[in-house]
Amino acid sequence: MPTSHLTLPIALDAMGGDNAPEAIIRGAYQALLRHPGLKFLLFGNEQAIQPLLTKLPKLEQAAKIVHTDMFVAMDAKPSQALRRGKGTSMWMAIDAVKQGQAFGVVSAGNTGALMAMSKMLLKTLPGISRPAIAALFPTVKGECVILDLGANIENTPQDLFYFAVMGNAFARAVLGLNRPKIGLLNVGAEDIKGHEGLKQAAKLLTNTPIGLDFRGFVEGNHIPMGDVDVVVTDGFTGNVALKMAEGTARLIRTYIRGAFTAGPISRLAAWLASAQLRGVKHKLDERKRNGAMFVGLGGIAVKSHGSADAFSFCNAISVTVELAAHNINEKIITEMHKLSDMDLTDTLKDKA
Amino acid sequence: MPTSHLTLPIALDAMGGDNAPEAIIRGAYQALLRHPGLKFLLFGNEQAIQPLLTKLPKLEQAAKIVHTDMFVAMDAKPSQALRRGKGTSMWMAIDAVKQGQAFGVVSAGNTGALMAMSKMLLKTLPGISRPAIAALFPTVKGECVILDLGANIENTPQDLFYFAVMGNAFARAVLGLNRPKIGLLNVGAEDIKGHEGLKQAAKLLTNTPIGLDFRGFVEGNHIPMGDVDVVVTDGFTGNVALKMAEGTARLIRTYIRGAFTAGPISRLAAWLASAQLRGVKHKLDERKRNGAMFVGLGGIAVKSHGSADAFSFCNAISVTVELAAHNINEKIITEMHKLSDMDLTDTLKDKA
Repeated sequence: MPTSHLTLPIALDAMGGDNAPEAIIRGAYQALLRHPGLKFLLFGNEQAIQPLLTKLPKLEQAAKIVHTDMFVAMDAKPSQALRRGKGTSMWMAIDAVKQGQAFGVVSAGNTGALMAMSKMLLKTLPGISRPAIAALFPTVKGECVILDLGANIENTPQDLFYFAVMGNAFARAVLGLNRPKIGLLNVGAEDIKGHEGLKQAAKLLTNTPIGLDFRGFVEGNHIPMGDVDVVVTDGFTGNVALKMAEGTARLIRTYIRGAFTAGPISRLAAWLASAQLRGVKHKLDERKRNGAMFVGLGGIAVKSHGSADAFSFCNAISVTVELAAHNINEKIITEMHKLSDMDLTDTLKDKA
Repeated sequence: MPTSHLTLPIALDAMGGDNAPEAIIRGAYQALLRHPGLKFLLFGNEQAIQPLLTKLPKLEQAAKIVHTDMFVAMDAKPSQALRRGKGTSMWMAIDAVKQGQAFGVVSAGNTGALMAMSKMLLKTLPGISRPAIAALFPTVKGECVILDLGANIENTPQDLFYFAVMGNAFARAVLGLNRPKIGLLNVGAEDIKGHEGLKQAAKLLTNTPIGLDFRGFVEGNHIPMGDVDVVVTDGFTGNVALKMAEGTARLIRTYIRGAFTAGPISRLAAWLASAQLRGVKHKLDERKRNGAMFVGLGGIAVKSHGSADAFSFCNAISVTVELAAHNINEKIITEMHKLSDMDLTDTLKDKA
């Protein structure tokens, strides 16, 4: 991804995550190799960060440390983090985006705190009342976008509609699709299935003036088959589905590992197929898809897995670069502008 | 599983499912080989069933055809099937359980119709207002029970509590566990996470007089890791999670197939490891775990996948045999009896 028109640096919460600051700094270094020209603002404890930077002179040249002694604990309650969080590495990194000093922020810290602070500092985009967490998921055809993955626990039909608008922009930006296929996650593909709220959301998506390519309801098994490019769901269901998929992939890795260490012939086979097995492992590597965006906010905020290592964190940085380089928020704002004359409540009434 | 004390036959809806009646009859034959002594009532079109039976004399001896011309269409609406379904193969098969002529019923037909008819004919067990769909899922440690998988779209805390009681009985019956570990599916393991209804269900499960081994909240990724033996969730989330896992397994099979056909050396490796790869394939074979029980009804009703082949349908029969042989409903009734003095509403008020 060209970073040439990203003149601003990226803001990193160098103290967030289980492996901070090491994984953050080494992840930033990997990201610099991948995106030459990228610049970094590193928020956190200078005494902890500087020795790591000294070992990576290339990164040291591209980075600036903004010192703070304070950071948000991984188990802090979001409400507490919000009240007392000013001056923490997370807060300052988000604030750099707000102040126009960075094109986006990445943190591997406390998810709830990151969401709460991002909402407070970056505000939601015009017309969006609830941001969502969006991320990529592998499919037999490539990748799809799923949202919401847990920013919200319950959602209205209107929320789901806006998630589709934002997911559409995300897929256009990150997957390079012209007109992404959009599906609404349900327990059956038939129109009669599911909650009333889902049926209402389907009505809204069928009657949009922005011409979304809405394909109706999809079921859980359709996601990995790549039936649609954007999967829209409430945050509870999305979170459970994604984690269930991660757990299933881990289960299967356990089976495969067991199969290929079962005896000398299996081990020989594993050796012969090692490149191919590595390929499968690579495709399943969750770290590759690390980096979930808080879509709907007035700035790009990306959450990395808390347990991210350097490779994983580097990928979260890459997602942020892609989202910024493809102007995801401008895309969302344009769509929302087209929708501004549309009264969702009226649409629901008309079609009831 | 010994079928010696199952003196009654099993009732099969011979016309339900995409591959009926062939898959049903050949599945019954496989089940007979697996459970010698098992007897069958086959409900459906005699002209279609008899020629298949004639080819399988062993099964012919153990089976009796109960003729009907009518069957429930796979796309029938449950309400219509209920109004006009009397006399269909599905209805008659369920009715055989009600009349005490069969120890359980299996159908690969229309899920909604099967649930509606089973509820009407078999009624719910005392104290249970909503039945649930329960099935097994593979874990690194063996298998776990998940419920509800889609009988309900929304559930109260009380429903979830009773799902746990029924799942507990299911795990004791089918997994042979003495005291199954029970988890409530949520988006985080912390007490503060999730809807209010989930927190209330957790309260009820913590304060039960029947000594359930409740382990609190579990996340989607904990299911395949085998952290608990019984996963309790609402029907919407459970359905999406299970299907997402199925789709993910299919995605990974696609990756593996691709890896082992990529070139001559990979093919040699696949040949050397063929027994092991078959082992993995077998572990992932959804057909092995075919057969979801409608728990909470006054009779054993099991739903097979609509697309079941003979092997798959045979496994749905096996589940039914196991559930009957282990008296699952007696186990649920005993627990419900112990709970009869417990006022769930009071418990929620006390701990609010």
